[in-house]
Amino acid sequence: MNYLTTSREELLREYEELKKTYAAVCAEGLKLDLSRGKPSAEQLDLCEDIFSTLTTGAEARAENGFDCRNYGVLDGLPEAKKLFSDLMGIPAEYIIVAGNSSLNLMYDAVARALLYGVVGSEKPWGKYEKIKFLCPSPGYDRHFGVTQSLGVELITVPMTSTGPDMDVVEQYIADPTVKGIWCCPKYSNPEGITYSDDTVRRLVKMQPAAADFRIFWDNAYAVHDLYDDHDELLDIFAEAEKAGCLDRIFYFASTSKISFPGSGIAMMAASPANLAQIKPIMGMQTIGFDKLNQLRHVKYFGSAEGVMKKMKEHATVLRPRFEATLRILDEELSGLGIASWTKPRGGYFISLDVMDGTAKRVYTLCKEAGVTLTTVGATFPYGIDPSDRNIRLAPSFPALDALEQAMRVLVCCVKLAAVEKLLAE
Amino acid sequence: MNYLTTSREELLREYEELKKTYAAVCAEGLKLDLSRGKPSAEQLDLCEDIFSTLTTGAEARAENGFDCRNYGVLDGLPEAKKLFSDLMGIPAEYIIVAGNSSLNLMYDAVARALLYGVVGSEKPWGKYEKIKFLCPSPGYDRHFGVTQSLGVELITVPMTSTGPDMDVVEQYIADPTVKGIWCCPKYSNPEGITYSDDTVRRLVKMQPAAADFRIFWDNAYAVHDLYDDHDELLDIFAEAEKAGCLDRIFYFASTSKISFPGSGIAMMAASPANLAQIKPIMGMQTIGFDKLNQLRHVKYFGSAEGVMKKMKEHATVLRPRFEATLRILDEELSGLGIASWTKPRGGYFISLDVMDGTAKRVYTLCKEAGVTLTTVGATFPYGIDPSDRNIRLAPSFPALDALEQAMRVLVCCVKLAAVEKLLAE
Repeated sequence: MNYLTTSREELLREYEELKKTYAAVCAEGLKLDLSRGKPSAEQLDLCEDIFSTLTTGAEARAENGFDCRNYGVLDGLPEAKKLFSDLMGIPAEYIIVAGNSSLNLMYDAVARALLYGVVGSEKPWGKYEKIKFLCPSPGYDRHFGVTQSLGVELITVPMTSTGPDMDVVEQYIADPTVKGIWCCPKYSNPEGITYSDDTVRRLVKMQPAAADFRIFWDNAYAVHDLYDDHDELLDIFAEAEKAGCLDRIFYFASTSKISFPGSGIAMMAASPANLAQIKPIMGMQTIGFDKLNQLRHVKYFGSAEGVMKKMKEHATVLRPRFEATLRILDEELSGLGIASWTKPRGGYFISLDVMDGTAKRVYTLCKEAGVTLTTVGATFPYGIDPSDRNIRLAPSFPALDALEQAMRVLVCCVKLAAVEKLLAE
Repeated sequence: MNYLTTSREELLREYEELKKTYAAVCAEGLKLDLSRGKPSAEQLDLCEDIFSTLTTGAEARAENGFDCRNYGVLDGLPEAKKLFSDLMGIPAEYIIVAGNSSLNLMYDAVARALLYGVVGSEKPWGKYEKIKFLCPSPGYDRHFGVTQSLGVELITVPMTSTGPDMDVVEQYIADPTVKGIWCCPKYSNPEGITYSDDTVRRLVKMQPAAADFRIFWDNAYAVHDLYDDHDELLDIFAEAEKAGCLDRIFYFASTSKISFPGSGIAMMAASPANLAQIKPIMGMQTIGFDKLNQLRHVKYFGSAEGVMKKMKEHATVLRPRFEATLRILDEELSGLGIASWTKPRGGYFISLDVMDGTAKRVYTLCKEAGVTLTTVGATFPYGIDPSDRNIRLAPSFPALDALEQAMRVLVCCVKLAAVEKLLAE
């Protein structure tokens, strides 16, 4: 039955059925959560032997003999740089290995640009009346939050199946106050889309009016594949170098979803010119990051291959959750004409578009039935989804049976909200 | 012999003797370092069993059951707050337990004030043409560096034996663009002076023209006593509350010199009103700090008493180094009329004032003899010691015999530089 083309009579019957199902669900007193892009306890257990990696001070030496228990080394241990370099396929000399949070590095990068400017800036970004950032949407709420918090104006750019709509991007960058763009280029949050080669090339070939424009390249899911047959992302540094705009890239990643969220290690990568500007300022901010945790990670994983082996174990835990989510969406919502969703081959999210104008209603219905969804609108600048249709599903955290239960509630609510709306029209 | 009152003849003889001693020292090809306020390897070994504190995931739960391996908890584990609260004698509800660096928290606090303002600000500090910070000097170069890097003008305030010269402070704060003061109130860097009760009370009772004035209270050496008979610092929060200016205090500390520099845990403490402004911004900057390291510290030390026990072990390692340094200063420089120094009962430094106008010369003479001192001037704003006389001695890092050797070189250079100057007059 396609809800959009079926008779009103049929729809009323469906409505009665859905109400019954929904009432039954509500009576169960569920307490389920589909909102959090967190690894499950099962995944966290995969790395628990990291705790026994450093057990005496003698093990706390870097390869160059440096005692990692003491002060020193601003920009990360050489072996930690090498690990990220091998893993991400980018030059070690572009890399700073820092603390526990890549988000913190991104926030600090924007704050630093506001306070000092970046390479090529005429003045600190904070000295402009107003600067703007491009926000491909749906996107990651915490990206948008960083710039919003720091007083930067957010401009929504639509996402396509190949990344941000580059025609729109190319229009906006003619404005010299547009200083940057947020990108989650592989298995994007929340759609799980990987930017096409063409998108990456257009990002480095475009000519922003702002000479100090920066692409914030948050490669959060660089190695977070669910399948051997995984997405491939073009090397943006290599492309930027060819295009003569190497300084345009601020690159970020972390082991938050490799080892532990909040207790992993994060990195920023940028051109030598950028690093020459950033490091002295960073050296005023801190004497150095947690080198023991860097060393712990290097010793535990051993190599990029060691990380990739662990990522296969993560995939084994995550895959059934993604597949169950997609199966239920498919079984319950296919052909109704009221919803579409992405089928990511990696990352942490699935993006569900429900009937326009019903996402908030779905959220409320789910809430009342005991299922927490990501706040509707969170995936758009200022928390406002103009079409009120996008819902970010995070299948990673719940146990499989809880996930399936939550998904059954969700699809019921998606249908109920759509029928309500169609009947009211 | 007092160099200032002795005959020129006598001085010339002394000069010849000193030149011989110095030449002999230079011939030894030493390579010694008195510049670094770092714990020695012996001290780092004291905490090496912390590495085996968390060895399975089951141990990674906070007292409230929270899985510290996952995302969440912005402002620190409750038990980590309690540890700092007990240790510092300040309310747990004022405390944020953060990452590995209190300097980073201080930098971020100034940056945040520039970008957002603080409680009571009319506008962000960055919106002023110019703001200023008071810098009690000699002081900690990295404090001054934070504000200098962020474009804040530095004003030198003389240190006295009871803390900053409060008469001078009270004059400067009549200027509404004076927004803050850097304080290292216990065993100050570099003098090892602890602020008197009167100084603490005047700091909270003074009436700055800037309603949003902040005291940056870096209690870096709060529990870093060398002797049982140790200095006592008045509780600034209690005094500020009595004086009705609780919001004036930004308080910082860390375990950098308790467990490991760079791999410890740091804290900021402030009034509930300040925290209500800070935490939402911090929540944009990061999802959370390294809770596993917080938990590791809590489990390892067990309690404030556990920390104090470890501090006694640190003192056992540090005390002979301080005493050797002071003994050599006393033996070699007493009564010459050319030098004075502090005798701290804790902290990491001894402050040596040589004859005016000779500190740089002493630095160079030492350098050429293979002994590295802290850069002369570093203890003053903009790296300029107006009297060219202050030298920060850091006795903690070298082995005892190397320290004594370095001190013998230093005192020779102090004398030589003084005699050179006196003979040239």
